[in-house]
Amino acid sequence: MDLITELRAALGGKAVLTGAADRAGFEADWRRLYNYPALCVVLPETVEQVAAAVKLCGAKGMGIVPQGGNTGLVAGGVPVAGGDQVVLSLARMRRIRGTDTVSDTMIVEAGVTLVAVQEAAASVQRLFPVSLGAEGTAQIGGLISTNAGGVQVLSYGSMRVQVLGLEVVLPDGAVWNGLRALRKDNTGFDLKQIFIGAEGMLGIITAACLRLYPPVTSQATALVGVASITGAMAVFQALRARAGAALTLCEFIARPAMELAAAHVPAGRLPFPAGAYVLAELSAHGPGENMDGALEEVLAAALEAGVATDAVIAQSGRERADMLALREAVPEGELKEGGAVKHDIAVPLGAIPATVVAIEELVGRKYPDCRLNIFGHMGDGNLHVNIRPPVGQSLAVLGDRKVQITRDVEDLAVAQGGSFSAEHGIGQMRLDGMRAHKSAVELGLMRALKRAIDPAGLFNPGKMIPEEDETA
Amino acid sequence: MDLITELRAALGGKAVLTGAADRAGFEADWRRLYNYPALCVVLPETVEQVAAAVKLCGAKGMGIVPQGGNTGLVAGGVPVAGGDQVVLSLARMRRIRGTDTVSDTMIVEAGVTLVAVQEAAASVQRLFPVSLGAEGTAQIGGLISTNAGGVQVLSYGSMRVQVLGLEVVLPDGAVWNGLRALRKDNTGFDLKQIFIGAEGMLGIITAACLRLYPPVTSQATALVGVASITGAMAVFQALRARAGAALTLCEFIARPAMELAAAHVPAGRLPFPAGAYVLAELSAHGPGENMDGALEEVLAAALEAGVATDAVIAQSGRERADMLALREAVPEGELKEGGAVKHDIAVPLGAIPATVVAIEELVGRKYPDCRLNIFGHMGDGNLHVNIRPPVGQSLAVLGDRKVQITRDVEDLAVAQGGSFSAEHGIGQMRLDGMRAHKSAVELGLMRALKRAIDPAGLFNPGKMIPEEDETA
Repeated sequence: MDLITELRAALGGKAVLTGAADRAGFEADWRRLYNYPALCVVLPETVEQVAAAVKLCGAKGMGIVPQGGNTGLVAGGVPVAGGDQVVLSLARMRRIRGTDTVSDTMIVEAGVTLVAVQEAAASVQRLFPVSLGAEGTAQIGGLISTNAGGVQVLSYGSMRVQVLGLEVVLPDGAVWNGLRALRKDNTGFDLKQIFIGAEGMLGIITAACLRLYPPVTSQATALVGVASITGAMAVFQALRARAGAALTLCEFIARPAMELAAAHVPAGRLPFPAGAYVLAELSAHGPGENMDGALEEVLAAALEAGVATDAVIAQSGRERADMLALREAVPEGELKEGGAVKHDIAVPLGAIPATVVAIEELVGRKYPDCRLNIFGHMGDGNLHVNIRPPVGQSLAVLGDRKVQITRDVEDLAVAQGGSFSAEHGIGQMRLDGMRAHKSAVELGLMRALKRAIDPAGLFNPGKMIPEEDETA
Repeated sequence: MDLITELRAALGGKAVLTGAADRAGFEADWRRLYNYPALCVVLPETVEQVAAAVKLCGAKGMGIVPQGGNTGLVAGGVPVAGGDQVVLSLARMRRIRGTDTVSDTMIVEAGVTLVAVQEAAASVQRLFPVSLGAEGTAQIGGLISTNAGGVQVLSYGSMRVQVLGLEVVLPDGAVWNGLRALRKDNTGFDLKQIFIGAEGMLGIITAACLRLYPPVTSQATALVGVASITGAMAVFQALRARAGAALTLCEFIARPAMELAAAHVPAGRLPFPAGAYVLAELSAHGPGENMDGALEEVLAAALEAGVATDAVIAQSGRERADMLALREAVPEGELKEGGAVKHDIAVPLGAIPATVVAIEELVGRKYPDCRLNIFGHMGDGNLHVNIRPPVGQSLAVLGDRKVQITRDVEDLAVAQGGSFSAEHGIGQMRLDGMRAHKSAVELGLMRALKRAIDPAGLFNPGKMIPEEDETA
């Protein structure tokens, strides 16, 4: 029997898509930069069906590409060129298996969207704090497999921190039931850690036990104008010192990024002129509690010292929503204006100002016709460094220069002690960065880990780790 | 040349201890329950010396036992019986390589004590939040290798969360320089995660980049009396809902544990009678800020509702210190009164009351002559379940019953969806638990990981993972 027939027999005919039109949405990545055919797409509904599909593919030596909401930005969840592969979508595993408001945990299947998790938590007066632009589509399995970040990492941590337990199908089709709801468990190697952020290279996450938090009852939100990144850093440091973990959001938005956003939100306009902007939020718990005073105090001192040039505190939920919408509109505005060569770097917090200055200098010197769009999660040292094509021209015009631009930005980040992929991962798109920046020792460890868990190279072939001979 | 001669030639004579008296302090574990001879003790001062020692031992197939402050409670850092092994102590690697108060990071070598890290952070107005009883002796390398916990995990997380980067010597003597200072870095497998909590089975941690926090400027601390564990849980839940991450300490102390402590602190006395006690602290940042009002509000409501039976809020730094000293004195009091068969379990938060009741029932039914001493980190679901020998008798009297007691307590924890070792790890002492409670899939994954990184089984042989034939 051929593999498709076997998969249909095991999972049912509707769970296996083979027609080109049916497969299309699973083959192209979010940004439609990568688009290679899959042998078929399987849509299991249970962990047993995932395991069955993995065993059948394994017996034929067929590579499997696990896929969540397909919102990734590095083409990690779609097939690579030149090889038959099966896309295994977790989209139909979308049950919330249980919520426990005493333990503050929720067990969800891989295909549940981030918004659905946030809403389920809110419905029982709890917070699930991971928040990012694609949250309506991104699925928990993919978010865990990519260790997703977003805008509240500085206070709550990335997806890794939210995971208490996992259920994982291994390359041999065995199921590891590690769905624990424990805050502490030092019984041997902490196996869930090797699957989190592993981009599906070691196992297929089918369910997770997530950590919930007490709900925030009020927020104090401000948009702050500063002269430059140096002022932005000073505002961030003052807020963090004053508020600790209550500083739940601190975004940097360079002026060109703010202009892009303002032009593309309904009734959007630049709130006030400034060299650059900081969007910050402090959160409070408990009835009657608020962080308004703390926020006012820090901003007054910053204005007094000339560190901040302007500041607006949201006076209502509506004003707050408008401020957050401005930040969220930056990528959308960029896309509508023709896109960009995008990068997602991280540097030590102290290196943020020097990095921004160096990037501005790089673009001015080497790519003076291009336009820099820079913004990011300041509290994490995470900057989205996007280089837009010349005015009136499309991204395609940049042609081969795109590769050099990416190399230059990545080199610059690494020279600052930084990362060339802070939260987006490697997938297919950042393999050049792995070749350029990872030591032989580090690549050797990654390959050893991959071989130990997936000796046949069945899961997500061609992703994350460059082939050995390529870097020899 | 024999190994000792080679080690002396490479590291210098003073770095290699061979005399029985010199070795003694490195061979017995903290509680002196395990004491087996080592071939020698090596005390390297640099990462290069660690690598050299590893290579020399590896060439002779000699097992290496990495050791930190030797304060572990499961004999993970001392030799096992019946085999020549070299103890490699990191005690002489005690430099603080750098502190950065903008990035809020500190790079320390493995042999730096936890207190030294706390003090170095405090000296630059920063907080390093991990805090535990052995902090004056415990070393950072050991704390990371055991993913240590302590009393502030509920707010700040365990050691795993504090580690941004690692420098590790691998079993082949190669050095992995992963000393990054990044809050986000998704470039391939997050390799540091496999070494954290690995008890030295995969690599020898020689240095770490740690995360620092803004200092807490004031604390509101209370000792609360409750009728039972149910009341304690209600107080915890109310505090967490009200304070979020500002609830930085929430300890449960059963009445017998409090009596033990009170009898053994200077001028100690039971602060007030109660069925059980909760020690809680809320922390604030910023000048003039405090959490007194929030604490009073929650406690007033708890007293009003009859959930709390009594409560005292510390009115001075001295009163706060006395309260914390009472909690810290529990293990000391227990030891002075003859010790106990100790356990360190964790359960989902919601299962805490049922677990405490079940343990009381177990001891009453099966070990009525023994005395239960139970206390722990309530916010983590982590209970120290210690069974003391009959009045006036020594621990030795329990003889073989100790094994059964441990089995019963571990079974009970696992039956509640819990862990049989929450923060202490496995070492030599909890191998029975691994045999009893870990699935074949999970042990298989651990063995695969161990073989992949340390195929010759050079690092910490005989620890953590039971031999394959033992569990077949």
